[in-house]
Amino acid sequence: MKSANLDVLLLTKPSNMFYLTGDGRLCAYAMITQKGKVGLGVPQTDVKDVESLAYFDHLVGFEDEVGMIHSIAQYFKDFGIQKGTLGLEHAFLTGSMMGMLTHPHAKPKRVVVKDCTPILSELRIVKDGREIEQIRAAAKVAAAGMKAAVKAVRPGRTESQIAAEAEHAMRQAGAQEFWRTYVSSGPRTNIAHGLPTLRKVKRGDLVMIDIHPIVNGYSADICRTVCVGKPTANQESAYDLYLRAQQAAVAKAKAGVGMVELEETLHGVIKEGGHGDHLFGPTIHGVGIDFEESPLPPGHAFFHGEKAPPPLGENVVIAVGNCGLYAGPWGFV
Amino acid sequence: MKSANLDVLLLTKPSNMFYLTGDGRLCAYAMITQKGKVGLGVPQTDVKDVESLAYFDHLVGFEDEVGMIHSIAQYFKDFGIQKGTLGLEHAFLTGSMMGMLTHPHAKPKRVVVKDCTPILSELRIVKDGREIEQIRAAAKVAAAGMKAAVKAVRPGRTESQIAAEAEHAMRQAGAQEFWRTYVSSGPRTNIAHGLPTLRKVKRGDLVMIDIHPIVNGYSADICRTVCVGKPTANQESAYDLYLRAQQAAVAKAKAGVGMVELEETLHGVIKEGGHGDHLFGPTIHGVGIDFEESPLPPGHAFFHGEKAPPPLGENVVIAVGNCGLYAGPWGFV
Repeated sequence: MKSANLDVLLLTKPSNMFYLTGDGRLCAYAMITQKGKVGLGVPQTDVKDVESLAYFDHLVGFEDEVGMIHSIAQYFKDFGIQKGTLGLEHAFLTGSMMGMLTHPHAKPKRVVVKDCTPILSELRIVKDGREIEQIRAAAKVAAAGMKAAVKAVRPGRTESQIAAEAEHAMRQAGAQEFWRTYVSSGPRTNIAHGLPTLRKVKRGDLVMIDIHPIVNGYSADICRTVCVGKPTANQESAYDLYLRAQQAAVAKAKAGVGMVELEETLHGVIKEGGHGDHLFGPTIHGVGIDFEESPLPPGHAFFHGEKAPPPLGENVVIAVGNCGLYAGPWGFV
Repeated sequence: MKSANLDVLLLTKPSNMFYLTGDGRLCAYAMITQKGKVGLGVPQTDVKDVESLAYFDHLVGFEDEVGMIHSIAQYFKDFGIQKGTLGLEHAFLTGSMMGMLTHPHAKPKRVVVKDCTPILSELRIVKDGREIEQIRAAAKVAAAGMKAAVKAVRPGRTESQIAAEAEHAMRQAGAQEFWRTYVSSGPRTNIAHGLPTLRKVKRGDLVMIDIHPIVNGYSADICRTVCVGKPTANQESAYDLYLRAQQAAVAKAKAGVGMVELEETLHGVIKEGGHGDHLFGPTIHGVGIDFEESPLPPGHAFFHGEKAPPPLGENVVIAVGNCGLYAGPWGFV
């Protein structure tokens, strides 16, 4: 906070709150001062639950939006902050939420707002041993979900029904939650965010399945493309090429390598294999509390309010070739 | 748009895009001019899928964020808009997304931004016959999900496993998707957003289940509280009181009645029954493409970027007493 010239943070993004305080929930905030004071605000209903999960010197419950605004003003007063710089999460806050948190009844007039998105992401980018263990546990749950989904891929099943099997298996295997499941088939296989529909899969369809369980607050992200019945020679060689590209990028992933270099490695193999026209990115991103988080490659980082990432450090966890997108006619074969 | 003094809308909220154009998806936008020109932008991968779902005079695919920004600039040029007022969804757009859409390479300098959240919500607040039919279909799917969840409430099951049964049943019954499921039990029963955890339910626990399926683009929202095993007299009378309060509010719901009046009716019964200290709101809201949408009662509307709602009109669909929150010790009995 000192080097970013921030006197106080007002966090509302659950994953950031969870990372720093041990509790992250909707409709709540954490105020953190440079001197280390921490104040939490949650709906009045949630006070007991928070107390059972994490310790806070300062914890307040509010009844409604007006109460929330007033409780923020009170923390500014209690923590002795009447001027300085306030970090808000521009990549998470909507315009109207931003309006609430900077309302004249909440924020002292001489406190100036800055975006704190990148500094939170930089903190979270390198994982410690316990975090890597949690991500491994989530990956195991994802594998169980994927196994169930692939088994459910039969002609006549809807994309939604295939998603159902993945989600059910993940919850049975220990997921507390999951991010939205993607199952897209046939002509939909190659869309960017393949939320499932009632389309029934047919023999010969490709089906893309992308799942993201949450276990103890940490996520995994795995994606597989399968064929309903026996694939054509064309489908099989495109699949093999993608796998080879993915493995080439994985082999290259180590500390000091840049995200762009990794992406170019993956894309290079696909271009050499004659599918350069079907490239669509980005296909590599960080994984942690969020299933898609920093490091994000350029071309996607802006949308997430992030800076272009530095070369990979040690203990950065990434998903490679995820969502293996083949633009063009690939869903139609 | 004329009466709101808006020359052009640039929508990115999927539910608003779906309402006006027949297609709503992530990472896409629809530009709509006062003269009725409509331009859509989607990831390059999604062009064929959109063409199969809805007709657009102007449809463009982009490769990445830079391509998205440039495609917006091109529409401003093609539609002859170099000055005037642009409506953006402040209640949906994050600060960084807002930054992209208003980037100097996207938006002409003399085009001024205004929030268009309330006018879109006003359009959507009254449902036509086909919409009400879709919401009914979603409600039937919700009932199937609730039946499966309640059946799964057994000592030793985790909240997440109970959620799994609801979600699986909803997808089997025809849901294409669902909003995040809430299952909270025991000391967690009364929290505001009861995302499931790995807590195992015990005999005597109350369990709150809140589910929101999406069927053909429309949602439902039902919430039920059940007891693991036989309820105590105390639990039973609190439950009966809540049900009576909910039914009193439902009986009062008709055109011309205000949302605040409805909420006061519900709260009034609970106060008379001696549980005034346990009230927590708001408990009434609109249902449609989003499971929680306008009309929203004051105290919640600000957060959603909405105005205080007018009295109910005909064919407005609302959920009453949903999430029946009892603040205080209710989860602990």
